[in-house]
Amino acid sequence: MKKLMIAAAAFFILSAFTIIQKKQRIVFFGDSITQAGVKPDGFITRLGEMMKQKGIDNNYELIGAGIGGNKVYDLYLRMDEDVMAKNPDVVVIWVGVNDVWHKRSFGTGTDADKFEKFYNAIIKKLQAKNIKVLICTPASIGEKTDFSNEQDGDLNKYSNIIRSVAKNNNCQLIDLRKMTLDYNLANNKENKDRGILTLDGVHLNETGNNVVADVMYKALIP
Amino acid sequence: MKKLMIAAAAFFILSAFTIIQKKQRIVFFGDSITQAGVKPDGFITRLGEMMKQKGIDNNYELIGAGIGGNKVYDLYLRMDEDVMAKNPDVVVIWVGVNDVWHKRSFGTGTDADKFEKFYNAIIKKLQAKNIKVLICTPASIGEKTDFSNEQDGDLNKYSNIIRSVAKNNNCQLIDLRKMTLDYNLANNKENKDRGILTLDGVHLNETGNNVVADVMYKALIP
Amino acid sequence: MKKLMIAAAAFFILSAFTIIQKKQRIVFFGDSITQAGVKPDGFITRLGEMMKQKGIDNNYELIGAGIGGNKVYDLYLRMDEDVMAKNPDVVVIWVGVNDVWHKRSFGTGTDADKFEKFYNAIIKKLQAKNIKVLICTPASIGEKTDFSNEQDGDLNKYSNIIRSVAKNNNCQLIDLRKMTLDYNLANNKENKDRGILTLDGVHLNETGNNVVADVMYKALIP
Amino acid sequence: MKKLMIAAAAFFILSAFTIIQKKQRIVFFGDSITQAGVKPDGFITRLGEMMKQKGIDNNYELIGAGIGGNKVYDLYLRMDEDVMAKNPDVVVIWVGVNDVWHKRSFGTGTDADKFEKFYNAIIKKLQAKNIKVLICTPASIGEKTDFSNEQDGDLNKYSNIIRSVAKNNNCQLIDLRKMTLDYNLANNKENKDRGILTLDGVHLNETGNNVVADVMYKALIP
Repeated sequence: MKKLMIAAAAFFILSAFTIIQKKQRIVFFGDSITQAGVKPDGFITRLGEMMKQKGIDNNYELIGAGIGGNKVYDLYLRMDEDVMAKNPDVVVIWVGVNDVWHKRSFGTGTDADKFEKFYNAIIKKLQAKNIKVLICTPASIGEKTDFSNEQDGDLNKYSNIIRSVAKNNNCQLIDLRKMTLDYNLANNKENKDRGILTLDGVHLNETGNNVVADVMYKALIP
Repeated sequence: MKKLMIAAAAFFILSAFTIIQKKQRIVFFGDSITQAGVKPDGFITRLGEMMKQKGIDNNYELIGAGIGGNKVYDLYLRMDEDVMAKNPDVVVIWVGVNDVWHKRSFGTGTDADKFEKFYNAIIKKLQAKNIKVLICTPASIGEKTDFSNEQDGDLNKYSNIIRSVAKNNNCQLIDLRKMTLDYNLANNKENKDRGILTLDGVHLNETGNNVVADVMYKALIP
Repeated sequence: MKKLMIAAAAFFILSAFTIIQKKQRIVFFGDSITQAGVKPDGFITRLGEMMKQKGIDNNYELIGAGIGGNKVYDLYLRMDEDVMAKNPDVVVIWVGVNDVWHKRSFGTGTDADKFEKFYNAIIKKLQAKNIKVLICTPASIGEKTDFSNEQDGDLNKYSNIIRSVAKNNNCQLIDLRKMTLDYNLANNKENKDRGILTLDGVHLNETGNNVVADVMYKALIP
Repeated sequence: MKKLMIAAAAFFILSAFTIIQKKQRIVFFGDSITQAGVKPDGFITRLGEMMKQKGIDNNYELIGAGIGGNKVYDLYLRMDEDVMAKNPDVVVIWVGVNDVWHKRSFGTGTDADKFEKFYNAIIKKLQAKNIKVLICTPASIGEKTDFSNEQDGDLNKYSNIIRSVAKNNNCQLIDLRKMTLDYNLANNKENKDRGILTLDGVHLNETGNNVVADVMYKALIP
C-alpha cells in the first residue's frame, strides 16, 4: 500500500511537472527563404519532423515568420506584431540576402552601416525581453565555388558584419554562409551556380532544406 | 484708484495667462537638409527670426532633428529617442531625397511600397500621442525646369506618394516639390541644375532657406 | 503597225526607266522596338502598307535592323555588318531606351557623354558614305503624363542629347519623345503607365505602331 | 690609314645594322591605371628603366594609350586612332575594372556578354594586322583577401571571361587578378582593403607599379 501511494505520488508529481513544463516557442524570423520554410518540404517543417523522430516534438513549438522581399529594416518594422506578440522563447533571425541582392536588382539594398544598426536594434529589443536570439549569415546568391557569383563580395562583407554582430551581442551564430560554401566545395565540382542546395542560387531545394534543418537542429537542441 | 486696480488685475490676469501658456514645441525631423536648417543661415534659424520680428517667438520652441543621409526608415528607427523623447506638439517631417537619390549613387534607395509603409508607421506613432504632423514633399535633385534632371521621374513619383500619405492620414502637406518647381519656372530661365534655391541641386542656398522659411511660416502659424 | 511600234517604243522606254530608277533603300537601325517593327503589325510593315496605298511602294525598300537590348554602342559595333553592308540610302536610328533603362535594371546603362560620343561616331560613318541619317528620340519608359515615370528625368536628358546631336550633325530629327508626350497628354487622361501607345510602357501596341508609322511616313516621304 | 678604314667600315656596318633593326613598338591600351603607367613612377616608365638596365632599351618602344574611365567599348571606339595609327607590333590590353565598378557607382557598367563581344572584336581587328595581343585580367577593386570586397564576385566573373577570351583567341594572358590575390595573401595579413599594391583599392601605388612592371617584363621579353 505504501509503495502504491509512493507510485501514485510520483505519478502525480511527474504529471504536474509535465503540465508545468511549457513548450519552448521558437520563431523563425526572416525573408522568402524562411517563408518557404513552413511549406510541406521546408526546413522548418523538416525540423519539426526531426523533433518528432527524436520524441521531443512536445517540447517545442515552431513558428514561421518569414515574408518575401524582407530586408533587415522590414523585420524591425514588423517585429512587435509578428514576433513579440507571439511571446517567443527563442528567435532565429535569417536575413541579409535582399539587403545585398536588391542593390543590383532594384537599387534598393541596405547600406552596410545601417544593416548593422537595424540588426543591433532588433537583437536588443528581443534580448530586453529575455528572448534567446540566434542569427544566421545569408547562405548564397549563386552557388559557384570560385567566388565568381556576381554578389559574392558583398555577401561575404555582410556575412562578416553578422558574425561581428553575433559576437558583440552574445548571440549564437548559425553560419549558413560558411556551411553553404563548404558544402558546395565538396559537392559542386562543376562550379554550377544553382541546383546544389538551391533552386535558383538563393531559395532552398530539397537537399538545401534538409541540410539547413540539420544545422538548425544542432544549433537549437542542446 | 478703481481704474488702477482694474489695470493691476488685468495685468495679473494676463501675466498668469502668459505663465500658463506653454510654448508650442516644434520638431523638424529629417535628413541633411533639415540638419543644415539650424545653422546660422538655415531655414529653422530664419523661421525663429521671423517669429521674433512678429513678436511671437515666446510662443514657439523650434528644435532641429535632422541627420545627413537619412531615409524614411532611418527616421523610424530613431524617432523614439530623437522626437518622442522631446514631447513635441508639432512635428514637421521632410524626407525622401535620399530614398530616391541613393538608388543611383549607392544602390540603397527605398522601394516605393516600403517608403509609404514606413511613412505611415511614423505618422501613426506621432498621431497616437496627439502630436500634430506636417509632411513635406522632397524639393529637388537638380533644379532644371524641363524635367530633365536625372531622377525627376522618381522624385515626382515619391512626391505623389507623400501627397497621398498626407491625405490618408489627415496631415497638413507642405508641398516643397511643387513650390520648388514653380519658383524655378519663374526664376530659372536658363534651365540651370543648381544655384537657384540650392547649392548643389539638393541642399538649400540662402535664397532657398528664406523661401522654405516663408513657406514653413505660413504652414505653421495660423 | 505604226501604232504598234509606238506602243513597243513606249514599253521599252518605260521599262528602261523602271530599270534605271533604283529603289530608295531605308534601313531602320535600333533595339527591340525596331526589331518588332517588321512583325505583321509592326510600324515598318505598316509603313510599307501605307506606301502601297499611295502607290509608291516600288520606290522604297524597307529593311529592319533592330536587335533587342541594343544600346548605342551595340549599334556602333554591328553597323558595318548590319547597315553599311546593305548599302542604304537612308538610315533611321532609334535608340536610347536601353541606355537609360539598363541603369536601373542591370546597372549597365550608358554614360551621357559616351552616349553622345558613340551617337556622333555612328552618324559620321554613315554621312561619310553620303547616307541620309534621321534620328529619333526615345519614346517612353512608362506613359504617365505627370513626369512621374521613374526614369522620365533621365529619358528627357538623353532626348535633349539626341536633339543636340541632330542639330550638330545636320540630321533630320524624329522627335518620338515629344510626340509620345503630346499624344498621352491628349489621350491618357487617367495617367496610366501603359496601354496608350505601348504594351508595357516601352514596346508599341497597335495604336503605337500606327502612330509611329504615320510620323515616320511624314518624315521620310517628302 | 688601314686602321682608319676598318674603323670607318665598322662604323658603317653598325650604322646599317641599327638602321635595319626596327624597334619593337608596344602599345599599352587601357583605362586610368594604364594612363598613370607613363607617369615618372608608373609601371610603363619602370618597364623602360628595366629594359635600360638590361641594355635592351634600344629594341623596344613603349607607348601608353590609357584613358581614365574607359570600358571595353571605349577602347573599341578609339582603337583606330589611338592604337592602329601607331602601327604597333604588340598591344597589351588591360581593361575591365570600370566595366564592373561603374555598375555600382554610376549604373553604367558593361553586361558580361557584351564585354566578351567587344573584347573579341578588338582582338580580331588587331590580330588581322598581325599585331601580337597580350591581355590582362583586372587586378582589384579592394585588396581584402577574404573575397569580401564588395565587387569581388563580379570582378572574378569578368576575369574568368578574359581568361576564356585569351584562350579562344590564342592571346597571351597576363593574369594580374591572380597575381594580385596571391601577392595579397602573402603580404596583406591584416586584410586591408588598400595600401598593399594600390592607393585606393584600384590604382597602383609604388609597390604595385614595380610588381606589375616585373610581371609585364616577364610576359613581354622572351
